[in-house]
Amino acid sequence: MRFLIPLISSSITSGHYRIISRLLSAHSTKPQHSTLPPFFNCQPPSMAASEESLRKALAEKQSAVEAHGNAVRALKAAKASKPEIDAAIEALNSLKLEKSSIEKQLQAAVSGSDGDGALSREAFRQAAVNTLERRLFYIPSFKIYRGVAGLYDYGPPGCAVKSNVLAFWRQHFVLEENMLEVDCPCVTPEVVLKASGHVDKFTDLMVKDEKTGTCYRADHLLKDFCNEKLQKDLTISAEKAAELKHVLATLDDLSAEALGAKIKEYGITAPDTKNPLSDPYPFNLMFQTSIGPSGLSPGYMRPETAQGIFVNFKDLYYYNGNKLPFAAAQIGQAFRNEISPRQGLLRVREFTLAEIEHFVDPEDKSHPKYSEVVDLEFLMFPREEQMCGQSAKKIRLGDAVSKGTVNNETLGYFIGRVYLFLTRLGIDKDRLRFRQHLANEMAHYAADCWDAEIECSYGWIECVGIADRSAYDLRAHSDKSGVPLVAAEKFSEPREVEKLVIAPVKKELGLAFKGSQKNVVEALEAMNEKEALEMKTALESKGEVEFYVCTLGKNVPIKKNMVSISKEKKKEHQRVFTPSVIEPSFGIGRIIYCLFEHSFYTRPSKAGDEQLNVFRFPPLVAPIKCTVFPLVQNQQYEDVAKVISKSLTTAGISHKIDITGTSIGKRYARTDELGVPFAITVDSTKDVTIRERDSKLQVRVSVEEAALVVKSVTDGLRTWEDVWEKYPHHTSGSADD
Amino acid sequence: MRFLIPLISSSITSGHYRIISRLLSAHSTKPQHSTLPPFFNCQPPSMAASEESLRKALAEKQSAVEAHGNAVRALKAAKASKPEIDAAIEALNSLKLEKSSIEKQLQAAVSGSDGDGALSREAFRQAAVNTLERRLFYIPSFKIYRGVAGLYDYGPPGCAVKSNVLAFWRQHFVLEENMLEVDCPCVTPEVVLKASGHVDKFTDLMVKDEKTGTCYRADHLLKDFCNEKLQKDLTISAEKAAELKHVLATLDDLSAEALGAKIKEYGITAPDTKNPLSDPYPFNLMFQTSIGPSGLSPGYMRPETAQGIFVNFKDLYYYNGNKLPFAAAQIGQAFRNEISPRQGLLRVREFTLAEIEHFVDPEDKSHPKYSEVVDLEFLMFPREEQMCGQSAKKIRLGDAVSKGTVNNETLGYFIGRVYLFLTRLGIDKDRLRFRQHLANEMAHYAADCWDAEIECSYGWIECVGIADRSAYDLRAHSDKSGVPLVAAEKFSEPREVEKLVIAPVKKELGLAFKGSQKNVVEALEAMNEKEALEMKTALESKGEVEFYVCTLGKNVPIKKNMVSISKEKKKEHQRVFTPSVIEPSFGIGRIIYCLFEHSFYTRPSKAGDEQLNVFRFPPLVAPIKCTVFPLVQNQQYEDVAKVISKSLTTAGISHKIDITGTSIGKRYARTDELGVPFAITVDSTKDVTIRERDSKLQVRVSVEEAALVVKSVTDGLRTWEDVWEKYPHHTSGSADD
Repeated sequence: MRFLIPLISSSITSGHYRIISRLLSAHSTKPQHSTLPPFFNCQPPSMAASEESLRKALAEKQSAVEAHGNAVRALKAAKASKPEIDAAIEALNSLKLEKSSIEKQLQAAVSGSDGDGALSREAFRQAAVNTLERRLFYIPSFKIYRGVAGLYDYGPPGCAVKSNVLAFWRQHFVLEENMLEVDCPCVTPEVVLKASGHVDKFTDLMVKDEKTGTCYRADHLLKDFCNEKLQKDLTISAEKAAELKHVLATLDDLSAEALGAKIKEYGITAPDTKNPLSDPYPFNLMFQTSIGPSGLSPGYMRPETAQGIFVNFKDLYYYNGNKLPFAAAQIGQAFRNEISPRQGLLRVREFTLAEIEHFVDPEDKSHPKYSEVVDLEFLMFPREEQMCGQSAKKIRLGDAVSKGTVNNETLGYFIGRVYLFLTRLGIDKDRLRFRQHLANEMAHYAADCWDAEIECSYGWIECVGIADRSAYDLRAHSDKSGVPLVAAEKFSEPREVEKLVIAPVKKELGLAFKGSQKNVVEALEAMNEKEALEMKTALESKGEVEFYVCTLGKNVPIKKNMVSISKEKKKEHQRVFTPSVIEPSFGIGRIIYCLFEHSFYTRPSKAGDEQLNVFRFPPLVAPIKCTVFPLVQNQQYEDVAKVISKSLTTAGISHKIDITGTSIGKRYARTDELGVPFAITVDSTKDVTIRERDSKLQVRVSVEEAALVVKSVTDGLRTWEDVWEKYPHHTSGSADD
Repeated sequence: MRFLIPLISSSITSGHYRIISRLLSAHSTKPQHSTLPPFFNCQPPSMAASEESLRKALAEKQSAVEAHGNAVRALKAAKASKPEIDAAIEALNSLKLEKSSIEKQLQAAVSGSDGDGALSREAFRQAAVNTLERRLFYIPSFKIYRGVAGLYDYGPPGCAVKSNVLAFWRQHFVLEENMLEVDCPCVTPEVVLKASGHVDKFTDLMVKDEKTGTCYRADHLLKDFCNEKLQKDLTISAEKAAELKHVLATLDDLSAEALGAKIKEYGITAPDTKNPLSDPYPFNLMFQTSIGPSGLSPGYMRPETAQGIFVNFKDLYYYNGNKLPFAAAQIGQAFRNEISPRQGLLRVREFTLAEIEHFVDPEDKSHPKYSEVVDLEFLMFPREEQMCGQSAKKIRLGDAVSKGTVNNETLGYFIGRVYLFLTRLGIDKDRLRFRQHLANEMAHYAADCWDAEIECSYGWIECVGIADRSAYDLRAHSDKSGVPLVAAEKFSEPREVEKLVIAPVKKELGLAFKGSQKNVVEALEAMNEKEALEMKTALESKGEVEFYVCTLGKNVPIKKNMVSISKEKKKEHQRVFTPSVIEPSFGIGRIIYCLFEHSFYTRPSKAGDEQLNVFRFPPLVAPIKCTVFPLVQNQQYEDVAKVISKSLTTAGISHKIDITGTSIGKRYARTDELGVPFAITVDSTKDVTIRERDSKLQVRVSVEEAALVVKSVTDGLRTWEDVWEKYPHHTSGSADD
């Protein structure tokens, strides 16, 4: 009598899929007035609120201009006096100027800036992306074959950053928390993803150009249409603007039918050809393949790494000594066959996920190390603040948990740990916020869900999802596989519990219902406590009740002698339950892209004739920790450089020697562009200089010490400030740029 | 006029594919008499050689037994005297005993051991595999859904070993050699794998059960048949045995037709049903999928990581300052849709490869760091020794290169570095050999190729392939993409070179050939130097020649005034060429499995009542470096344990606390089974003991020093012997097992 609950709420973007499925559109139309980065010349909060009145003012002014235009024409037709006509024209011009001014204000309001904001965001991104691509941080994959949309390679510095980020993730989460790391294949048989719901629900709505067959994401087209209309067409009414904004805000919730209706209503056509579009229909986003040679075993490239952990729960629980809580973790590739990838590294068809599944007793979600994060304070954006149109604000984590804004300690603990992880990587804490999911964003089974969102030139990007998914995933796999994925709490001494016992009397039921006996027995046994006790009372008072048997589709009469219902006391030695899972899920590529933007800046060259690019990566993630330059081309200096290089290798410090004859300034600029934090310049055989990238300050250190000084700072044992205090300063202009 | 050379030699197992494609069968029938592990009670080398004579002796003895049997029956029929009959029976029995003895010897000879060898190999493997699976080093993937053949998860300790192996690979190769590491997607568009040859040639031959449709690898069936016959049927003649051995030795070279013919000839049927089999046909081993929603862009999951590097050559060369040599490297998943996976972790459908592509000027394959490996001495198995039936022998690497056995310095350098890498991981140097490819194993374009083979219970397993692939891969992608993948050597001063100049006179050719003019012009321009000079001579002597234009499919008459052919001197500033690539390619999963076997041993418990399992992993790869045990359950000791745990975390040492009340001996046994090298036992609040796993020796160290002592040994800064010398010894029996 148990019904399968719908596995996934109808919105593709809800719950578990959000980290890998959401275009971050839903929020781009919401007020975003938290702390702003230096390159965003954004409006004060009041501005956005005035958009509606500006639209009204503009419409009024437009009517006035038209009316005055008609008046001028009428005066001319009536051959009125020149001064009269001139005065009317002057009034018209003045109205036109006023209209133009309102237009400008409105333009600024809808683009969320003073008009230059969007432009400077674009320019900043272009500068960063140019440097990233030129220095091979990333490369469009298969470039010589003109590439494939949504696939990117990490080139040498990008690959080094990625491997540093992953190493730190392992240190910060797996090692410090004693997590059980696993490594499962990407190729996954259908049954697993059927159980998880991906085969049926992991879809985006697609429309096709009816003539060319080109495919588009339906919500993208509608979103682009609304945004374009709102930003470029200033003539639309305030009501129309409100309607378009409502569409944008509810985009993720629209059914295929509703989306199709809007596309028809707005007359949206294929962007490239203007051809008509098909109705929207779901396209499954998993890459499908076939396992083995028979063609009979469909498989998919996993869309997330989490399922590999869930199916191993039983073994991992045993490995952990049958104790809760424990966390398992996995780093690996995940795949998503996007309909039309865009936004560079942010929306790709293959990406690295790092996921944690923390299994916990649903009755005790405390965390032993919670006290270590309780005093952290950072930008949080709870559900209520979003609903009231407020902005994210600084909240002490302990307060958010104690007030119940964050559902439980364990969830709070992970939010805190994620904050520490991201900021230690070099993410700007003022452009990082934790946004709680709205009720309609969450899957029905989720207890609470927070996204770590990082602001970059594309807006606020969801980079980490931290969800309390309750017992959903383990139950789904238990049901499908028939293997119980449960935990047990052993009682220190047996507990007496009252248990309901329903005992159908088969002989009587057989006589009464013959062939239908089995259905009736099953229906009786499936009663819950309330139903059973009601029946017991009714049978005792009336001797017979009508009972609905759903597998028969009708009521049957049940007599007192057909079933015995009682409550019995039993001794239980343990409590068996399905653990809840709290899942922090990291989109590594998105974090890295945001890190690139947060680390990038330009500064003028010494001559002031050009802008030089710098990545201010902390040593932890810098792709190369140190460069070694002989000041001039000279065998002695080169030999010293080689000695230092050897000590750096022994110390495990990634570095590069540059013995080209290029000027030292150019060589510094080259390595600043790769975000190398330290440069050792060899200008004698005894002492060398060490230069720090951002301050451009230099100290003098002996050849023997050089590698160790760099190692101590990159390992975090001391800071550059400590070094600056301890060693003699170097101030030769020639050695700087 | 240029013909595409066949991309890959017809044998699927040749050249580039060997690391991921070869069943290691071809060698299992060759003599394998290098150093033997303790659990292989193998025969002395002379034994195998006697197999042929044993088969002959057995056949003779069989005839003699039959003849004597007939004689005895004849005597009985003739009612001969009892003593006469008894004597004949005695002689017959004696003959039977002799026959039985020869049978035993033959049995031993064909199983390559004294008969117990194969059994003890099996028993050893079973013990190791049981421990590995029970302690979750690996887990059959999707086990609760009954798994998928050829897919395995690494559980927590396996995953840690893998991540340690990869970290060391990065340190040993990428960091120490300043390689350019890249990270490319697994999803690969068809055009790339068409160029590389995988779409057309990356196949295995498959046969189907004609009734059930079950698929088998054709060569596996033939191989199993031959091995079974050779090992179990002692009645086959020496000639037949030689034939079967020849089939085994040439298995990799057999065409589909030849394989099909053999299967028919031997009457091989489907192993499970005994149904007849289809003819063999090629099955492409790549997992196919479709990129994007249109269904029009076929793609594959990459079968190796190398292609991602080749297509990026141009950018990487630029990144390296347009200088050769340089190496690029990639670690990542690769996929191979095996027809019927077997041999556990050794032949799987998804695996991690670590590949290096070292690009070098084909005219200068020296290596600057060659001198660092020149004196290494290890087991090598050159082509000639294999042809002469000799065994692998210790050779000094420098000698192998200087004698030309190894083709060049760079290849030699990598062989040496691979040797150091594997032995530092813990691979037994006496069960590691470098085997040169035979001429028929290599692709036609390969200059030389060596496999690092590791001996385990499955035989000698190819774990690393080190090939000089000449310019093949870059040329293939240049041709397909139209993007030149070349390097240039700038001359310090321009060099004068003689160049052939072919100048067709278009006006005359137009008059003569009208519409076909273009074909004739192209054919003339495409002549090589020899052809052109021959034409020049002929035109000068005869004034006219017949010239075959292949695009027209006929000869045309060329007159003296239609083309001018001359040699001109030109100044050149650089030499442009396609670099050669030397490719060390590591099958990480295979290396790890062999490492598991080489590290595994058992020893009796103190009571002598059971065998305890130990993995002797070096600290470098051990999944957990250290455990911390309070000797008894006691708050004070637990607090000390937590303090030590905290210092270990700070020092970045992965460890585990075990505060269960289990006996200390059992707790040691548990961690020995995970290969944990050190255990810190807290038995006071001031001093603790540190126990080393293999020697079981213990020292006493202060609480403050404990973490640092462990760190210094696991980081390789000192050895356990140093620690043993420095600290007081601890000899409490109770603290040991």
